[in-house]
Amino acid sequence: MITLDLILPDTRYPIHIGHGLLEQVDLLLPHLPIPKAAIVSNETVAPLYLHRLQQALGARGVACTSVILPDGERYKDWQTLNLIFDSLLAGNAERRTTLIALGGGVIGDMTGFAAACYQRGAPFVQIPTTLLAQVDSSVGGKTAINHPQGKNMIGAFYQPRAVIADMDLLETLPDRELSAGLAEVIKYGLLGDADFLAWLEQNMAALRQRDSAALQYAVRRSCEMKAAIVAEDEKENGVRALLNLGHTFGHAIEAGLGFGAWLHGEAVAAGMVLAAAASAELGWLGAADVERVRRLIAAAGLPVKAPAMPAEQWLKLMSHDKKVEAGTVRFVLLRSLGQAAIQAGLDTSLLERILLENS
Amino acid sequence: MITLDLILPDTRYPIHIGHGLLEQVDLLLPHLPIPKAAIVSNETVAPLYLHRLQQALGARGVACTSVILPDGERYKDWQTLNLIFDSLLAGNAERRTTLIALGGGVIGDMTGFAAACYQRGAPFVQIPTTLLAQVDSSVGGKTAINHPQGKNMIGAFYQPRAVIADMDLLETLPDRELSAGLAEVIKYGLLGDADFLAWLEQNMAALRQRDSAALQYAVRRSCEMKAAIVAEDEKENGVRALLNLGHTFGHAIEAGLGFGAWLHGEAVAAGMVLAAAASAELGWLGAADVERVRRLIAAAGLPVKAPAMPAEQWLKLMSHDKKVEAGTVRFVLLRSLGQAAIQAGLDTSLLERILLENS
Ligand SMILES: NC(=O)c1ccc[n+]([C@@H]2O[C@H](COP(=O)([O-])OP(=O)(O)OC[C@H]3O[C@@H](n4cnc5c(N)ncnc54)[C@H](O)[C@@H]3O)[C@@H](O)[C@H]2O)c1
Ligand SMILES: NC(=O)c1ccc[n+]([C@@H]2O[C@H](COP(=O)([O-])OP(=O)(O)OC[C@H]3O[C@@H](n4cnc5c(N)ncnc54)[C@H](O)[C@@H]3O)[C@@H](O)[C@H]2O)c1
Ligand SMILES: [Zn+2]
Ligand SMILES: [Zn+2]
Repeated sequence: MITLDLILPDTRYPIHIGHGLLEQVDLLLPHLPIPKAAIVSNETVAPLYLHRLQQALGARGVACTSVILPDGERYKDWQTLNLIFDSLLAGNAERRTTLIALGGGVIGDMTGFAAACYQRGAPFVQIPTTLLAQVDSSVGGKTAINHPQGKNMIGAFYQPRAVIADMDLLETLPDRELSAGLAEVIKYGLLGDADFLAWLEQNMAALRQRDSAALQYAVRRSCEMKAAIVAEDEKENGVRALLNLGHTFGHAIEAGLGFGAWLHGEAVAAGMVLAAAASAELGWLGAADVERVRRLIAAAGLPVKAPAMPAEQWLKLMSHDKKVEAGTVRFVLLRSLGQAAIQAGLDTSLLERILLENS
Repeated sequence: MITLDLILPDTRYPIHIGHGLLEQVDLLLPHLPIPKAAIVSNETVAPLYLHRLQQALGARGVACTSVILPDGERYKDWQTLNLIFDSLLAGNAERRTTLIALGGGVIGDMTGFAAACYQRGAPFVQIPTTLLAQVDSSVGGKTAINHPQGKNMIGAFYQPRAVIADMDLLETLPDRELSAGLAEVIKYGLLGDADFLAWLEQNMAALRQRDSAALQYAVRRSCEMKAAIVAEDEKENGVRALLNLGHTFGHAIEAGLGFGAWLHGEAVAAGMVLAAAASAELGWLGAADVERVRRLIAAAGLPVKAPAMPAEQWLKLMSHDKKVEAGTVRFVLLRSLGQAAIQAGLDTSLLERILLENS
């Protein structure tokens, strides 16, 4: 097991990465202010892992309730969030009862937001069970639900007390979800680490075959980069925005097709190709660079073309992006492979061109 | 006009108290990061004051949208909150668009919570239009909506950028609402300032006749006390809990009868009598003290008796209180008139006795 530390102005917390961690409740116990926990999971993950976690906590005297949500991005909404509140109140959860997110990014984002709001703030812990959640969503304290008109529009910055990434849980993950997680891993290489990008090009086959050492290195390097960026800019006033590489396009795809049609990671993958293409239009990347991006994304089993949507729909959806400032959408583009930068505003004609070519 | 400053670890903001402030947008403008605002009001307050505010802001180049919610505590729920989000998204509100709460505590609490969640945090300003909101809810950053099973169960600590209390707006306030506000004013005297309590006893008639100087002093002294307590304990880990004098009982009344049946201030008033009676049972207050509390509350036009509810219902409703710790309800009681203290756990038999005598 390795442990990273995320140090923020008001708090700090460990990110444990390793094997067999689910039942090592010694990692969890120091973060529970009282021996009461409420586990939030979903219909897919609960049958696989909930019982083991509950047993392990129960054996150490922690009173546990659980709530099992329907599975899917389309349930990342207020109605489903309310099921968490209903369950907390039915179980007399207190302000210091710890919420435990046991699931992928959807469960993690919703549990974190529920914890942020329940009695104005209850403690919570992340046990991410997808690659995407282990490398990205469980770290950094962004929590949210979707609004029909925009992805992650309603949420909070609210940090977990600990992140426990048990690599063993990835064994049951479907291939398509593994690939979706690799999209965010590739993102880190593209936005800030050319060496890691090259490592990914060399190790993509091993990763897709779930080579244990390769996966653990990818999770570790991703979490290191995420933790460093979040430590520098918790509330996204600066550098943290770079983590949204591919996401302005990606969120438009997700909202435009209806949440859940494409996986988040798939939408981000196509979004990163669009970002690379836009960067090439500005002269920041060469054609060969864009090709390298496309090849790596394809090698990860991810789409390199966005779905066809009318240009006006793209523009309208992107105008709701959280990175809009003074009416202008701020895009994260690539100065070079391994170095992202913000570009405020792109010509409508440039946008139409790259959308036409890449969808 | 007088201005108080609330100084917190991460932020500070002014509380302006005076006459004719609604159209003095110079008080507002410094707090708008971009010249875009979204005013949230309700069906009752909007026809009275929205146009004037919008005109004044428009004249200074601020682009304003507005959303008008149904009026009432029973709408302090997720469905109504969503109307704010719908309106913000329809109006392309950005992360730095300022939300302005123009209304009483219900509008203030909901607008603040919407601001806390919209794109994970937008700026907001309070323009309280009820006495209760001017002396209490607009100051200190507690925001929330109700859950069917508990008052203010879902919310956030999220501070406004400014509070603008225009005394002139109280002219249109119904008498019953004025009295409800006086409940929170009396609360400050009871919990921490015996001199202010004596002043209230002498000036209650003037206050109810809306004597301008008396009202402004009551607002000012209340805000001073609230600001001092919040400055000391923003997140309610200690002394801030004292502001909940009468509220554990009061919230049970509100939830038990259905939100909106009793006004919040009325429920708190009856709750303060119960707290005084419980304090007497513990030997902290004498019978004459309890009588003084009853007399002042009655003089303010407020109920001194709680509605009849079965004892088990009281206990169940109070077990959902945010001040529950380790399964025990923590009551705010009175050591003496002018000095509150926390008491963890009260005998069920004691509770039943005081509930029987005071309802
Ligand atoms: N908060 C952040 O910073 C952040 C960052 C990136 C993504 N996100 C969010 O994360 C979400 C995507 O997360 P995700 O990709 O994990 O999706 P997900 O949570 O929907 O999980 C994907 C699928 O895998 C299943 N699953 C989870 N763990 C499993 C396991 N161990 N074995 C078998 N099946 C398993 C889930 O039930 C689901 O069907 C999006 O909503 C996205 O917006 C948030
Ligand atoms: N956040 C906090 O710290 C805090 C503190 C105390 C109370 N509260 C909350 O505040 C709420 C109660 O606030 P409230 O008493 O202001 O109730 P309210 O907001 O419902 O207002 C009372 C009534 O007066 C009307 N009104 C408002 N201003 C008016 C005006 N100037 N002229 C005529 N009518 C006017 C409203 O439309 C409403 O019908 C409760 O939900 C309570 O939980 C919050
Ligand atoms: Zn993402
Ligand atoms: Zn109150």
